[in-house]
Amino acid sequence: MTAIRNVLFIMCDQLRWDHLSCAGHPFLRTPNLDHLASRGVRFTQAYVQSGICGPSRMSYYTGRYVSSHGATHNRVPLSIGEVTLGWHLREAGRALALAGKTHVLPDAHGLRRLQLDGQHDLAALLREGWFTLVDRHDGHHPEPDSGYAHWLRRQGYAGADPWTEHVIAVEGPAGRPLSGWKMRNVRFPARVREEHSETAYTTDVALDFMAAQGDAPWVLHLSYVKPHWPYVAPAPYHAMFRPDECLPVLRHAEERGPAAHPLFRAWQEEEVSRNFQRDECIATVRPAYQGLVAQLDHHLGRVWDGMERLGRWRDTLVIFCSDHGDYLGDHWMGEKELFHDCVQRVPFLLFDPSPEADATRGSADDRFVESVDVVPTILEALALDPAEHLIEGRSLLPLSRGAAPAWRDAVVSELDWTFRGARRRLGHPVGQHHAWMVRDATWKYIHWTGGHRPQLFDLAADPEEFHDLGADPAAAATCAGMRERLLGWFTGLKRRTTLTWAEAELRTDRHKQAGVFYGEW
Amino acid sequence: MTAIRNVLFIMCDQLRWDHLSCAGHPFLRTPNLDHLASRGVRFTQAYVQSGICGPSRMSYYTGRYVSSHGATHNRVPLSIGEVTLGWHLREAGRALALAGKTHVLPDAHGLRRLQLDGQHDLAALLREGWFTLVDRHDGHHPEPDSGYAHWLRRQGYAGADPWTEHVIAVEGPAGRPLSGWKMRNVRFPARVREEHSETAYTTDVALDFMAAQGDAPWVLHLSYVKPHWPYVAPAPYHAMFRPDECLPVLRHAEERGPAAHPLFRAWQEEEVSRNFQRDECIATVRPAYQGLVAQLDHHLGRVWDGMERLGRWRDTLVIFCSDHGDYLGDHWMGEKELFHDCVQRVPFLLFDPSPEADATRGSADDRFVESVDVVPTILEALALDPAEHLIEGRSLLPLSRGAAPAWRDAVVSELDWTFRGARRRLGHPVGQHHAWMVRDATWKYIHWTGGHRPQLFDLAADPEEFHDLGADPAAAATCAGMRERLLGWFTGLKRRTTLTWAEAELRTDRHKQAGVFYGEW
Repeated sequence: MTAIRNVLFIMCDQLRWDHLSCAGHPFLRTPNLDHLASRGVRFTQAYVQSGICGPSRMSYYTGRYVSSHGATHNRVPLSIGEVTLGWHLREAGRALALAGKTHVLPDAHGLRRLQLDGQHDLAALLREGWFTLVDRHDGHHPEPDSGYAHWLRRQGYAGADPWTEHVIAVEGPAGRPLSGWKMRNVRFPARVREEHSETAYTTDVALDFMAAQGDAPWVLHLSYVKPHWPYVAPAPYHAMFRPDECLPVLRHAEERGPAAHPLFRAWQEEEVSRNFQRDECIATVRPAYQGLVAQLDHHLGRVWDGMERLGRWRDTLVIFCSDHGDYLGDHWMGEKELFHDCVQRVPFLLFDPSPEADATRGSADDRFVESVDVVPTILEALALDPAEHLIEGRSLLPLSRGAAPAWRDAVVSELDWTFRGARRRLGHPVGQHHAWMVRDATWKYIHWTGGHRPQLFDLAADPEEFHDLGADPAAAATCAGMRERLLGWFTGLKRRTTLTWAEAELRTDRHKQAGVFYGEW
Repeated sequence: MTAIRNVLFIMCDQLRWDHLSCAGHPFLRTPNLDHLASRGVRFTQAYVQSGICGPSRMSYYTGRYVSSHGATHNRVPLSIGEVTLGWHLREAGRALALAGKTHVLPDAHGLRRLQLDGQHDLAALLREGWFTLVDRHDGHHPEPDSGYAHWLRRQGYAGADPWTEHVIAVEGPAGRPLSGWKMRNVRFPARVREEHSETAYTTDVALDFMAAQGDAPWVLHLSYVKPHWPYVAPAPYHAMFRPDECLPVLRHAEERGPAAHPLFRAWQEEEVSRNFQRDECIATVRPAYQGLVAQLDHHLGRVWDGMERLGRWRDTLVIFCSDHGDYLGDHWMGEKELFHDCVQRVPFLLFDPSPEADATRGSADDRFVESVDVVPTILEALALDPAEHLIEGRSLLPLSRGAAPAWRDAVVSELDWTFRGARRRLGHPVGQHHAWMVRDATWKYIHWTGGHRPQLFDLAADPEEFHDLGADPAAAATCAGMRERLLGWFTGLKRRTTLTWAEAELRTDRHKQAGVFYGEW
């Protein structure tokens, strides 16, 4: 038997759980993802730790909940004190390669405090959260000097910022270039050929990396920026779907009514939500979004072929996931952040090459998976120290190998709502503004700070999450019970991060060995 | 009016709240502490964040709760990612000087990860939690190479470890030296002259420091190791009190009965508790402990005189506190850690030299103070940035200046019970073992992990905390209400530590200024 030597950790950005054909999408075909699912396990109840890129990714990269790692929102850096997958690998003499997006930001205050803000190798690693860059492309703001920008120029896409001018620009009527930031324009094709698009480029980088590694073992984070906005797809994907080939919009008049939760209402007033309340916006964006997913699937087929050529299916663990979903007009909302399943639930596929996993190949597993499970899964796959004193998730390998351990019966997601305009419109000053979701098999409970009432959904009776019971006196006991679960979750967080469990065991009841003899008569 | 330029932050180790004459002790006289109380405010309801040195001190030094700073027990280092008072001062061009004990340990894993484990100035500061050492003396283990050891040798106390051989050794019958680790021996005087004892030495160091500063501003942590064990007092203090001049022992048969909490019972089985269950142990240790407090008070008088000579009362904020108390046989217990008031409640005196504080001089204030309040009090006194994104306590200056702000109505303390033998005897493997106390004006609720029931005390009906209502069905609603308070405390912790509040305000709703135009139609 060949041991697992490599890990291919694939992430998409903003990909909803329901936009895979193996998850039941009636029109969108994802044969390559379906193929991966047929070779491994498809986890049907996988949830992220936060419904927004930065904090969700930091949970994927640390194996820790947002309240533990502290990077609570986009552009909130991960503390220099936090330990990431890249460090765990490096400590074992390995490296974590990156092709694509991470959303990692340097902890400027921490680097300055520790005099690590210089231009040396360590500082570069710390700025990247211990990722070794093959190529970084975050794909949501201009990157005039990125590797991708330079590559585009070599392909003939001139300009100060080829990403803005070509990749997220479209070819409008009569060849007129239009900005893809305007969602109305994503009905037109990108001003870049398909093979020069972000998804194609990042795939090329990853394939080149895998080939160049030869038989040296590797861990690669292949991190696609799509189908995240700007929702611009290259031809022919921009026109692959008609509006009536998209999923039905899930929204209900009650959600906009006077009894709706005030924070949910405030989010509906964000510009992106107001625009996604237009039917024409939904009818324009959803087809392009599906096209981007179809394109992703196509390029994943190239990755699978490359692995085949290189003989990597026998010794490579493959994880496929997303950092969160996208409202796309559901619940009168655009974007993400809040706690509906279309945001919090993500696709999650695990290919475990071990023979012990043969019995589960092609199965669907409905146990709750969280993004904090990725790091422990990778550490176990590579037989590395599990860092139990830090890691708050659990390895999924027992599940892929057919075991039935006692397992979690709920998931938790978090939001720092300081940074949205809604906070200001509601008159809350800057400071601490957090929310937590506890979702078990039946209930979804959302706890808001700032004196706001909770939300509660009965997922058995109301799987679309239209009817908020949070203000219903009859639901008070259920809410109280969910708060007890949330308290239990808080008490279980791993706060003693500077000492391993083995060290803690060694130091238990050892004062006399340390020359301290208190308490003797 | 002279602004506050200096801070004298005095801490004792293991000093109970009730061992001051101004707090009502009927036999022990502490005229110098009483004098400080008469010049400032005595906070009668001051609580620590943990009933053991290390975590309590890290809360004093960071202004953050234990769950936030993560140094959950003695010998659990503060994370390199945490920010201490010393850094806040340094960022403002100032320094935090230390004379005495800190219990700070270097974060070895973090220093290694960040390649900061070398022998340069920064590494030295980091190892000391940003304290600048005037003299460090932790006083609970052999320190053969400390400044105090070398000084003792210069005073004629020869030996490989003068602390063990003289300071905590006693002159037994017929001049025979005996170890002060054995509590039975603390009826005898230390083998060191009073003026060479730890308390005298640390006072000398502090007085020399203050004098040497001249008119340069300073912040000094004067941190006494006494009356912490070993309970050895130098003559004449070792024999200053008779057993009947000590406080009555608070213990009740019910506390040892079959209905007592199993963890409380397990702690009663620790060696130190078993010995403190002997009347002769209490009758031996309590007088020595009182003698150590009387000695401390004497040397504080020297500090006050020094400040007078140097003219420092006009521009120096003085804080006097303790890192926790001591059971001394109360509740059938020795040592500390658990949640009775004799451990969690501490003396707390604040002298604010500002004229605005004149109206409160000599007053007793019964609002709840926590040790996390010290850092924000010092930062405000020195007009430094309040670091609201980190600091979880509140400045006490509004209180000393007669304001009546909305104030906390409960305090929280925490315990990591991994490290005690009791954990093993109860069959719990190493890992996460925590407890939280929520104490308001009426109730003390203690929440244990590991499936153990809570404890609850009705402080109005049972101020001695003898009758645990945690298993009483009639108290279930009260317990549930206290858990809601605990949940509220958890949700309020400051987890977004890498961004100031001003930065967070700047980044609110600013995506378009950052070149990101999502959501436009």
